[in-house]
Amino acid sequence: MSAITYKPIGVVHSPFKEPKNVPIQAAASKDTKGTIEVNPEYVEGLKDLEGFSHIILLYHFSSVTGYSLTVKPFLDDKLRGVFATRSPSRPNPIGISIVRLTKIENNILHIQNLDIVDGTPLLDIKPYVPKFDCRRTTEIGWLKSKISKLAKTKS
Amino acid sequence: MSAITYKPIGVVHSPFKEPKNVPIQAAASKDTKGTIEVNPEYVEGLKDLEGFSHIILLYHFSSVTGYSLTVKPFLDDKLRGVFATRSPSRPNPIGISIVRLTKIENNILHIQNLDIVDGTPLLDIKPYVPKFDCRRTTEIGWLKSKISKLAKTKS
Repeated sequence: MSAITYKPIGVVHSPFKEPKNVPIQAAASKDTKGTIEVNPEYVEGLKDLEGFSHIILLYHFSSVTGYSLTVKPFLDDKLRGVFATRSPSRPNPIGISIVRLTKIENNILHIQNLDIVDGTPLLDIKPYVPKFDCRRTTEIGWLKSKISKLAKTKS
Repeated sequence: MSAITYKPIGVVHSPFKEPKNVPIQAAASKDTKGTIEVNPEYVEGLKDLEGFSHIILLYHFSSVTGYSLTVKPFLDDKLRGVFATRSPSRPNPIGISIVRLTKIENNILHIQNLDIVDGTPLLDIKPYVPKFDCRRTTEIGWLKSKISKLAKTKS
């Protein structure tokens, strides 16, 4: 299958200057504020976004080099298949975070619940819609006995 | 910012042979079954995934050419900023679907709630975890008055 090339649409500005001590999920990062700087050429695409309280960010884990098919997740001490984890060390290192959108000023999005490293290239922004994006399930595999550690665990 | 290149990790096999009459969200596609064929080189990364009832698929909207910064969503008749919609016609045409995982046989994932066109290149698989991925919000912008049409609307 042929390669797919994307061009970042912007960059994440965050208080986390390196991939250490970062909350391991946006859901565990209640207070961290940051901004998204969208390249001016895409500003028209932000129309109507401000009505959404939460947005989905897709971004490139730019500080990751290479990948492993089995990884030790932050929440566990056993090797797990990388696709059964949210580890950044994946074949295509695309990250996904759901963050709170508080304000848009021209090409700058003000956000909260940030778990992304400063300088991360942004690939896409989508509106978060519970009816599309929420599933009720309790079947969460190996994470079941580990999830209670989420709030206390950092990268 | 420099270009980012990804290599598909597999392909989606679906009863939807073209991007017409496809449910516009996985949440509205309760019964549609399909499979994901993961390239054999990545099979080791699927370890531990079978314990999760739902998975997040990231894929490339390969049938889309070009993009628009404002689009008319399937659920609306007004032009909206593309980043305030889930339209495939986006600068980086990355799609996201949450589907039900029913079985894994070697490199084949059996899934339900499919809203993806046959032959779509797959970029990533992540486990769906409500604690990471569910947000309670009622602020869904322009979609608020349109969401009730979801189940009846197709592409």
